[in-house]
Amino acid sequence: MKQICICLEFLTDAHRAQIEKTAAETGFVPHFFTPDQFEEARTCLQDCEILYAHSPELLQSAPAALKWYCCSYAGVEPYCQNPALFANPECLLTNSNGYGVTISEHVVMVLLMLFRRMPEYEEIVRARRWDNQLSIRSIRDSDFTILGTGNIGVNVAERLRGMGASRITGLSRSGRAREGFDQVLPISQLDEVLPRSRNLIMALPGTAESRHILNRERIALLPQEAFVVNVGRGSAIDQEALVEALNSGRLGGAALDVMEPEPLPPDHPLWTAKNLILTPHISGNMTLGYTCDVNVDMFCTDLRNYAAGRPLAQLVDRRRGY
Amino acid sequence: MKQICICLEFLTDAHRAQIEKTAAETGFVPHFFTPDQFEEARTCLQDCEILYAHSPELLQSAPAALKWYCCSYAGVEPYCQNPALFANPECLLTNSNGYGVTISEHVVMVLLMLFRRMPEYEEIVRARRWDNQLSIRSIRDSDFTILGTGNIGVNVAERLRGMGASRITGLSRSGRAREGFDQVLPISQLDEVLPRSRNLIMALPGTAESRHILNRERIALLPQEAFVVNVGRGSAIDQEALVEALNSGRLGGAALDVMEPEPLPPDHPLWTAKNLILTPHISGNMTLGYTCDVNVDMFCTDLRNYAAGRPLAQLVDRRRGY
Repeated sequence: MKQICICLEFLTDAHRAQIEKTAAETGFVPHFFTPDQFEEARTCLQDCEILYAHSPELLQSAPAALKWYCCSYAGVEPYCQNPALFANPECLLTNSNGYGVTISEHVVMVLLMLFRRMPEYEEIVRARRWDNQLSIRSIRDSDFTILGTGNIGVNVAERLRGMGASRITGLSRSGRAREGFDQVLPISQLDEVLPRSRNLIMALPGTAESRHILNRERIALLPQEAFVVNVGRGSAIDQEALVEALNSGRLGGAALDVMEPEPLPPDHPLWTAKNLILTPHISGNMTLGYTCDVNVDMFCTDLRNYAAGRPLAQLVDRRRGY
Repeated sequence: MKQICICLEFLTDAHRAQIEKTAAETGFVPHFFTPDQFEEARTCLQDCEILYAHSPELLQSAPAALKWYCCSYAGVEPYCQNPALFANPECLLTNSNGYGVTISEHVVMVLLMLFRRMPEYEEIVRARRWDNQLSIRSIRDSDFTILGTGNIGVNVAERLRGMGASRITGLSRSGRAREGFDQVLPISQLDEVLPRSRNLIMALPGTAESRHILNRERIALLPQEAFVVNVGRGSAIDQEALVEALNSGRLGGAALDVMEPEPLPPDHPLWTAKNLILTPHISGNMTLGYTCDVNVDMFCTDLRNYAAGRPLAQLVDRRRGY
């Protein structure tokens, strides 16, 4: 029987039973570890064909016989940027991009907090004042630009549409039409779209191309008092330019769940930037059962694909980076 | 020509033009004032048949010839509780219940903030820490109970449905089915519904029947760690019992946009209650253009109804209170 090494912190008994059943039906035996059992997992891994985890260290200690690494995270930049992690250069890499539901709820929350001036109202309430006439915006009849039309972008678009958004423009490498978007344009047209992007949502993978894609020049192209939300990777924004645009009032506000570096150092200017909703990379938090269920479902589906010799649904193009 | 006295703070030139056009077509002349022109408005009002405002003081100074008072607010309890405000006991009273869009966006925002532990994360971020493993909930696959199935309740249900809510139960006086709800029950069944109401949203008018409808005994019926959101009237909750249930951890959290009294006195225990998102009655704030547009549309529709002798769409039953 062929072996699978699984090293994850979030599996329930039901998840383990589901994986055991799928493995039995496809001729595999799974071995379960949690990240604090690193040494045991590493020993077991030497006889395994498949690894399901989120650990560059564990992957690096895998033998050349490893044929498939399923990463339980959506972001796989450490693996794409460092091919030396794979003893077997032909090893398949898949990611788990099932975070769209939880991350899109985070996006709706922070957009509404920006639209409805919650950072300012929270200060008012802390001071026990009763000012209530700050001018607000609504999702209804507003336009949105979503940079990235993957699982996150599609789920965000669906929710904004359901709340009456007027026009939702997506930008992706291909510019291929996606459900829920009024229009998807190739990312090469970003500079033309930014001047009419009052509400910019960024959900891009961390790649060489996305690095500082929102640079100083492009921040200057955004309309006065625009809002920026980033739930992709912190590397996509020139943070120094963003902090300046926030503190000067040039932008209306921003919400960052990702930044560079993480954790943010204690003296970083982002902590005190004006009208910024900062969260410590929580939007895709694995404490939500639904998120974990989807993760395990994706692995089991691809285990069936793998055993049957079919292409893996979650296969990552390692040169492209996602 | 018959006269209309209008005393509002939020009208734009476009709104005034729309009202002037409708008035001209129905045989009326409108006179516009803002609330700081109270004396001028009161003088004008002596010759008017219709008043469109939100001022018990102005109404009280109206002549017996006033036939219709259109209140620009949704809540009309001061007028229902005090018939002496009307010199003409037959005077029609209408309200403006077009706040559903903006208030439902507020509800979605605070529900997500409670589900995703934002009060705690905001403390973490203020302390510049990087904890990110607090356990969260999702709107998707969750059940919701909405007390009140009027314009607010229907808009809340529609948005929760669009985000994948599992089951939405409404409660209203009649128990009449409403779009977007899986089930609407008469409010007499509240005690049976509360033990399975993990997420309770309250959007009731301020009436004798809604006063302290969520009392100490009913708070005790809610499941452990339930969430309570109130955007109706503060009088609907026994605040002392709520504060105790929050501070003891019996409830998971609450979000109050309405309370008693308003403004809240500086030493009130609500200011410091645990896991409470407090906002100073902002959810229906008239700074949002859409909310103002709907308000004026409703008045113009009913002006046509009034002129044609048809029933007013927004007519309030003064004994019922809404």
